[in-house]
Amino acid sequence: MKRTKIIDALNAQAPVEDIRIMGWVRSKRDNKGFSFLALNDGSCLGTIQVIVDHTPEIEAALERTGTGASVAVTGELVESPGKGQKWEVRGKTVEVLGEADQETFPLQKKRHSDEFLRTIAHLRPRTNKFGAMFRMRSRLAQAVHRFFADKGFFYVHTPIITGSDCEGAGEMFRVTSLEAGSREPVENDFFGKPSNLTVSGQLSVEMFALSLGDCYTFGPTFRAENSNTPRHAAEFWMIEPEICFADLADDMDLGEEMIKYLVGHMLDNCAEDVELFAQWVDKSLMPTLETILKEPFERLPYTEAINILKKTKKQFEYPVEWGIDLQTEHERFLCEEKFKKPVYVYDYPKTIKPFYMRMNDDGKTVAAMDCLVPRIGEIIGGSQREERLDVLTARMGEVGLNKEEYWWYLDSRRYGSAPHAGFGMGFERMLMLVTGVHNIRDVIPFPRTPKSLEF
Amino acid sequence: MKRTKIIDALNAQAPVEDIRIMGWVRSKRDNKGFSFLALNDGSCLGTIQVIVDHTPEIEAALERTGTGASVAVTGELVESPGKGQKWEVRGKTVEVLGEADQETFPLQKKRHSDEFLRTIAHLRPRTNKFGAMFRMRSRLAQAVHRFFADKGFFYVHTPIITGSDCEGAGEMFRVTSLEAGSREPVENDFFGKPSNLTVSGQLSVEMFALSLGDCYTFGPTFRAENSNTPRHAAEFWMIEPEICFADLADDMDLGEEMIKYLVGHMLDNCAEDVELFAQWVDKSLMPTLETILKEPFERLPYTEAINILKKTKKQFEYPVEWGIDLQTEHERFLCEEKFKKPVYVYDYPKTIKPFYMRMNDDGKTVAAMDCLVPRIGEIIGGSQREERLDVLTARMGEVGLNKEEYWWYLDSRRYGSAPHAGFGMGFERMLMLVTGVHNIRDVIPFPRTPKSLEF
Repeated sequence: MKRTKIIDALNAQAPVEDIRIMGWVRSKRDNKGFSFLALNDGSCLGTIQVIVDHTPEIEAALERTGTGASVAVTGELVESPGKGQKWEVRGKTVEVLGEADQETFPLQKKRHSDEFLRTIAHLRPRTNKFGAMFRMRSRLAQAVHRFFADKGFFYVHTPIITGSDCEGAGEMFRVTSLEAGSREPVENDFFGKPSNLTVSGQLSVEMFALSLGDCYTFGPTFRAENSNTPRHAAEFWMIEPEICFADLADDMDLGEEMIKYLVGHMLDNCAEDVELFAQWVDKSLMPTLETILKEPFERLPYTEAINILKKTKKQFEYPVEWGIDLQTEHERFLCEEKFKKPVYVYDYPKTIKPFYMRMNDDGKTVAAMDCLVPRIGEIIGGSQREERLDVLTARMGEVGLNKEEYWWYLDSRRYGSAPHAGFGMGFERMLMLVTGVHNIRDVIPFPRTPKSLEF
Repeated sequence: MKRTKIIDALNAQAPVEDIRIMGWVRSKRDNKGFSFLALNDGSCLGTIQVIVDHTPEIEAALERTGTGASVAVTGELVESPGKGQKWEVRGKTVEVLGEADQETFPLQKKRHSDEFLRTIAHLRPRTNKFGAMFRMRSRLAQAVHRFFADKGFFYVHTPIITGSDCEGAGEMFRVTSLEAGSREPVENDFFGKPSNLTVSGQLSVEMFALSLGDCYTFGPTFRAENSNTPRHAAEFWMIEPEICFADLADDMDLGEEMIKYLVGHMLDNCAEDVELFAQWVDKSLMPTLETILKEPFERLPYTEAINILKKTKKQFEYPVEWGIDLQTEHERFLCEEKFKKPVYVYDYPKTIKPFYMRMNDDGKTVAAMDCLVPRIGEIIGGSQREERLDVLTARMGEVGLNKEEYWWYLDSRRYGSAPHAGFGMGFERMLMLVTGVHNIRDVIPFPRTPKSLEF
């Protein structure tokens, strides 16, 4: 008999005479003459209740069936007389697929700390919280593609191994096929020159935006930074759209539309899982998400933002002065206390931004923007790109970049250049926003951080 | 005025009084008193024809407008009296956004070799062929996600940096934050132990299949193999579904359904681009794709396949004997000559397959399967996984794997193990199948191969 997923059984429209359910036992309750099993198969948060009358065969099977075991049950799907569930299964057969030794199985039915669950990242998706998390991660990633596909954007797989250091966005991992400690010259290495893991696909995706129009890349990016914080991982996923024939205002429009779409999509399609986080992880989750959906984002020039931060009575750890990069405390003040909604800060001083951002007419600022959201701080960082060859090469000279190495990038400004803009959104930050979870280690299946490469 | 994409202008239902088109000039033809421009913006294969009457302003703009320049045209969308197009633009203004020096612009209107275009991979998406290729690549990747999302599969981002060598699937790249030639001990490296780029996400995705049910991963994978062939790249994308409570037959069903879905999706949604490849690249493309859509795939035990190969009069370079791994010549004979459609070969000798494949009752073969398609050979390789802890650990001992290192993988068989199966599909091979293109370098935006890391 074909297996029915538990999500489909729970959403059944009518009783089913013959049904086969397969899943993991969350709990077993024995009574005189019959037992209850609560089964979960990961297809949804809920469990389905199975009632089986004791026969010698079934008792033998139940003997081997503790929390964590996997079983196949055949029986009848009937309306449940019990509270809290519409349907239950009257089991006729129980087959044990895989036992779970109750002495050593680490996920007994009790609450476990996030820290403990990180040490068993291979089993934690079997818990309610992490099952919900990774269903939501999946849904969010698929929604990113759907958003762009529906808007006619092209998905570009930008390279992971790169020979350029892109924007100096951070410390890079080296990639090599030489043995550790080898003194062979780089010419003998796989690529014959230094190679690294990408920190951003932007420069590559710009080439495609300047050919195909609206594009995006969505892939893993890397930072070899030795920072052990709840916000940093060595490997994370980034979404980087790049839109052609577009300016900074278009860029901010796209970011706002995207965040609203993703939040709405999760509320519409993952209601049960979102509810778990709203109830157990972050009581302010729902109001935060509703504000994001409903309110137009504030758009604030950097210079005005600095004035607001200087005028407030609030004491900051980092002093505020025109020219500084905003710290998380400043960002959170603006969106959580001052405006109480997402805020775009734009037109930043050129001195704190990379070479490829478009110079404004004032000669002091560039057409950069950051989108700040409550609890997270910066969730999007982007800019209009410098499309003027002469301005771009002058900027590269200023910051000491080797023009020969970027010949291909400059070619795009040499031949049919066009105004374009784009941004990067940290996928994990977006997931932290919609779940209320604070530690990036708890939103990544198998997180990679300094000295931590288990699984 | 808001820009209209050329794909939308070409598909207009009615004339448009005020329209703004932005794109790259594919050609310009000057006549007495007026000029024609053919504009492409990458949104589709086609160009839109623009006619502008000469005024001093327009003549000045046209002066700076050669092939490859980017322009913004405003005007009126009207029915075209000319042949081959329904709509054209009567231009009122022409603004040059970016010139293209006609002396040096490498994409003058003539045919270029694939080899030459690889040296300007940053510009090649502006050609018809590579524009079509990368629109199709995007569409195919998005279709993969749609296929799985619609079936309730969960997308798992399995790690790119890994501490295990997975299946010994191939040579791995090392990842390090130590400087080249450094003799520091591995304890001082970022992760404190040897770390590599993944060759497969399978072992990780199995953990999720044994928690959430049907899952898949779709991400970049790497091989540090020094093979300069048209079929190998150091970095490529792989799709790896893993289905729980499933056996080898379910696995083959899924692969067949997926290939048929992807081929059908491309024919339905990229007709114009597919047509380009059918006309200019591979005359047999359409019949091949139609056979895949229409015919049930052959399913052939390995032992029978060997018998067929031994009996045929065809001479092979590699001699055929029970126990050998099939070579491309054998694979292509089976699907191109013998069955003339896709063929699954299954139940391979255990000696040529990795440790995690499920042992069959004969003790000699494992529940492995490869899907062979015309021109490409193997496009899918998969298996039912060994879910029995004792059989699995015995196999690991046989092949000399360190059980301690795989403690987490074995845990999944220790606690609530269940039958499951999965496969890997090379995304680039699938793209080569639906385009007829023979060289993997021509289906990857910026390919990485030995000694080649440009862009």
